[in-house]
Amino acid sequence: MYLVNCSIALAGGVLWVLSRGLRRKLEGLRDVVGRDKVYSDPAIVRLYAREPSGAQVFPENTAVAFPESVEDVSKIVRYAYKNDIYIYPQGSTSSLVGGAVPDKEGVVISFQRMNRILDVRVVDSYVDVEPGVRLGDLNLELARYGYMFPIDPGSVSVATVGGAVNTGAGGLRGAKYGTTRDWVLGLTVVLPDEQGSVLRIGCRTLKCRQGYDLTRLIVGSEGTLAIVVEATLKITPVPENVVTALGFYDDLRSLSNTVVEIKSSGVQPMILEFMDDKSARAAAEAINAPIKPEGHMLLAGIDVNREATDRFVKWLSDIMRRNGARKVYTARTLEEAEEKKLFEIRRNLFPAQVKVASKFVRPGSKLIVYIEDIAVPPSRLPEAVERLRELEEKYRLVGLLGGHIGDGNLHPIVGFPADDEDMKARVSEWYEEVMKIALELGGTISSEHGIGTFKRKGLEMELSHLGSLKALELMRGIKRVFDPKGLLNPGKVVG
Amino acid sequence: MYLVNCSIALAGGVLWVLSRGLRRKLEGLRDVVGRDKVYSDPAIVRLYAREPSGAQVFPENTAVAFPESVEDVSKIVRYAYKNDIYIYPQGSTSSLVGGAVPDKEGVVISFQRMNRILDVRVVDSYVDVEPGVRLGDLNLELARYGYMFPIDPGSVSVATVGGAVNTGAGGLRGAKYGTTRDWVLGLTVVLPDEQGSVLRIGCRTLKCRQGYDLTRLIVGSEGTLAIVVEATLKITPVPENVVTALGFYDDLRSLSNTVVEIKSSGVQPMILEFMDDKSARAAAEAINAPIKPEGHMLLAGIDVNREATDRFVKWLSDIMRRNGARKVYTARTLEEAEEKKLFEIRRNLFPAQVKVASKFVRPGSKLIVYIEDIAVPPSRLPEAVERLRELEEKYRLVGLLGGHIGDGNLHPIVGFPADDEDMKARVSEWYEEVMKIALELGGTISSEHGIGTFKRKGLEMELSHLGSLKALELMRGIKRVFDPKGLLNPGKVVG
Repeated sequence: MYLVNCSIALAGGVLWVLSRGLRRKLEGLRDVVGRDKVYSDPAIVRLYAREPSGAQVFPENTAVAFPESVEDVSKIVRYAYKNDIYIYPQGSTSSLVGGAVPDKEGVVISFQRMNRILDVRVVDSYVDVEPGVRLGDLNLELARYGYMFPIDPGSVSVATVGGAVNTGAGGLRGAKYGTTRDWVLGLTVVLPDEQGSVLRIGCRTLKCRQGYDLTRLIVGSEGTLAIVVEATLKITPVPENVVTALGFYDDLRSLSNTVVEIKSSGVQPMILEFMDDKSARAAAEAINAPIKPEGHMLLAGIDVNREATDRFVKWLSDIMRRNGARKVYTARTLEEAEEKKLFEIRRNLFPAQVKVASKFVRPGSKLIVYIEDIAVPPSRLPEAVERLRELEEKYRLVGLLGGHIGDGNLHPIVGFPADDEDMKARVSEWYEEVMKIALELGGTISSEHGIGTFKRKGLEMELSHLGSLKALELMRGIKRVFDPKGLLNPGKVVG
Repeated sequence: MYLVNCSIALAGGVLWVLSRGLRRKLEGLRDVVGRDKVYSDPAIVRLYAREPSGAQVFPENTAVAFPESVEDVSKIVRYAYKNDIYIYPQGSTSSLVGGAVPDKEGVVISFQRMNRILDVRVVDSYVDVEPGVRLGDLNLELARYGYMFPIDPGSVSVATVGGAVNTGAGGLRGAKYGTTRDWVLGLTVVLPDEQGSVLRIGCRTLKCRQGYDLTRLIVGSEGTLAIVVEATLKITPVPENVVTALGFYDDLRSLSNTVVEIKSSGVQPMILEFMDDKSARAAAEAINAPIKPEGHMLLAGIDVNREATDRFVKWLSDIMRRNGARKVYTARTLEEAEEKKLFEIRRNLFPAQVKVASKFVRPGSKLIVYIEDIAVPPSRLPEAVERLRELEEKYRLVGLLGGHIGDGNLHPIVGFPADDEDMKARVSEWYEEVMKIALELGGTISSEHGIGTFKRKGLEMELSHLGSLKALELMRGIKRVFDPKGLLNPGKVVG
C-alpha cells in the first residue's frame, strides 16, 4: 500500500487518526536504533526541511534519524518498509531543485554522523568514504597525498559525497573531469525492502564489468532507488601546475571565437568560465573587486607541466588578444591567480545576484533566488546568451548569467521577494522558458543540479523534445524494480 | 511467451514444424526491409556465428540482417517482436566471452553497413557515429583534428563502436582514461517492443542529468536491453607528447614497488603495462624481437608537455633503476618508442600464446585460446601473479600473463587443442579459479570483455562473494522492463 494513496484518499478525522498512528510509528523508530539517533521535535525537523533553492516545507509527523553505521540504516529501512513510512536520504540539503526536502510525512535519514574517510588507496586510485563526508574535507585529506576528487560544485565546502553521488554533481572543471558519474567505482547501498538489504555493487578497480551497471544507475537517482551508505570514488593526481588567463570582450562572438580557437588547437582547458558583461560588472561591484570588468568575461585555466608554463601563458594571452579581448590578465600559477584575484569575480556570481535582487525586497521580507542549470553545446553560446537576455526583458527580470563554457553549462540566476506573487509567477515562467531555449539549441534542461521536484516538468519537456517520452516509462519501471512500495524520496525525479 | 520456453518444452516433430514456421518468418523479414538486406544461406550465417573466444555455433533457422538505417532496424525489431524471433545485435564478433554469437535460432543484426561517422564537433567535444564504425577508423578521422576516442582494446582495428558500447570495452590506457562507460554521452536505441520504438537518450553536452542514467545502463549491457543504432561519444585531445620507459626486473616485488613509487608521486601514467618473465621471453622469441627480455617487464608511458620530456624520461628511468630494474630502455616520443620497438613485446602477448600452445596441437586440429580478464587492485599484483602461477602448475597448463597494471587488469592466457577433452576440462576449471583469485584479492571477474555466456557463472560468483546476489534479481527486473519478451541476445549476461 502506498502512503501517498492514503493521504489522498482519506480526509479529516480519519487522516488525523492515521497521522497519530504515524507519529506513534515514528516514535517506534527510536526503539529500533536508539533514542539518541532519532528526533521528531518540529523545531529540529524543520532544519532538515529547507534548501537554498527556496524549497521549504513544514512537515508534520516527520522525524530525522542520524544513523551511525550501515546497520543502523538497514534497521531504519526495515522498520520503514514494514510500517509504510516514506524515507528521505539527505546530505547537506544544498539542493537547488527541491530534491532534499521531505514534502510528505516520513523519516529523513541524515548522514551527518556517517562522515568518515574509511580508506585512501593512492596506488589503487580509489578512496572509500561514508556518505556524510564533505567534498571539501575529502580534498583536504587527499591533498596530503597529492591527489584529489575533482568534482567541485559551488557548494563544495558543505556538499557531501552522498549528495554528490545522488545528484550526479558537477562543477567548474567539468570540461576536463566530467561529473560525479565518471568518478564512482562502487557503492554500498541499502534497498527499500523487507530486510533493508545491504548491497555492495561495482568494484574497487578502475575497470569493472559487473553485468548491468547498477552503480552508475544509482548515481544521479536522487535517493529514489536505493540509499547510498558508502562510496568507492576514483581519485586523480593534482595537476603539476595550472596557468590562468582572464579576458574581457566587447562582444560575445569574439569571446566565443576564443573558445573555438582553444578547443580547435587540441587543448582541453581544465577551467573555461564565462560571465556576461552585466553580470561581471555586478559581481565586481558587489565585492569591490580590484579588477574592473570591461565587457564579457572569459576565464581559462590549463594544467601544464612546470616547464611549459611560459609557453601556455603566452599562448592563452595571444589567443584572447587575437580574438579581440580588450584586456587580458594572466597568472603563471594558481597561487598567483589567487593573489591577483582572477577567480574572484566568477566566484561571486551568486552573492552578486543576492545583492542585485535585494533592492526589490522590502525589509522583513524574504529573498528567493532561482538558479537555472541548463547546458548547450559550447559552440551555441552566443545564441544562448542573446536569447536569455531577450527572455529577461520579456519577463521584466534583472538576472545575472555565468557558466562553465568549457562544457556548455550555463547558470542564469534571478532573485525575487517571496511575497511578490506577480514576480514569482513571472520567474516560474522564465524558469521553464530557459529550459526550452536549452532544448532548442541542442542542450539539456539539467546539467549538474538534478531533477528534484523543480525540474520534473523539464525532464518531461526534454524527453518529449527528443521524441523519447517512452524513456520515462522505462525509468518508472526501474523505480518499481528497486522500490516497489515507492517509499524512497517520493515525488522526486520520476514521481 | 518466451521462445526459450518453446524450444525446451516441445520436441521432435512439433519442434520441426515450429522451425519450418520460423524459417518462413525469417523469409518474411526480406519483404520487410528488402531482399538485399537479409541473408539466410547457412554458409553466410555461419560467418556471423563464431568468435575468437572459441565460441562457435551452427545455427539452424537463423538469418543475418544488414540494416542501412535506424528505420531498417526499427522495422526488423517490430517484425521480430510480432513474430517472437530472437534478435542478436552484432559488431565485429571479436567478443572473447561468447557474447556475440546467436546460440539459439533468430536473426542476427549486423551493423556492417551502418558505419558512418555522422558529425565531428571538436568545440563541443563530441562525435556522432553509427554503431558499425571501427574504433581504428574513428581515430584516424579524429586525428585530423588533433583529437581521439581514447578507448583502445587490443582488437581496435576491427572492434566497432557498437561492440565497444555494448561490452563496455577498455584498453591499454584505462588507468588514465577509464573505459567506454566514461566516454558515452548519449545513444539512440531501438527498443524490443511492438513499435520497434526509437529512443534518443542522454545528451550532446558533457554534463547531463536526464533523470535515471539509461545511457550508462545500456553501456555494457551486451545487446540485452536495447539495440544501439547511434552513439554520441566524448572525445579528447591527443596528448602533446608521451615519454616511455621499458624496464626488466628480477623479481615481481621490485617491479610492483616501481608502480607504487610512480603512483605515490602523484603521477598518473597513460600506459602502465606488465608481462611476467616467462611471457615476455615467449613473446620476444615468437617475433624475434630486437629487445631481449631480462626478467619481468614493466612498460610505462606518461603524457607530458614537450618541455618536460627530458625531466620525465629521467624520472621514469631513475625510479625503475632505483627499484631494482636490471635493464631500462627509454624513448622521448611515441615515434622513438616505435622505432626502438618498446611496445612490440607487449603487443605480441596473444600471438605468442598461440605459438606456445600450437606445440600441443596435432596437424589438422584446431587451437582454442582462452583469455582471462580479471582485475585486482594494482597493489595486489605480486600476490596475484604468484597465485596464477601456482594455478597453472595445479592444472598442468602453459599459460602466459600480461596486463594493464595501471588499472590492475590482468589477462592470463592459455591455449589448448579443441579435440583434447582432458585439457579442455582442465582449462575450464582454471578459467573459473582465476576468477576466484581475483575475488579473493578484492578484484573483479571481468574488467573489459564483459559477461557474455562464459562469465555468467563468474558474475554470480562475484555477486555472491560480495553478499549481493540480490543485485542479480535487480538486473533481471531491469531486463524485464526493457525486454519483456526476452528477445534480445537471449542467454547473455543475466540469462
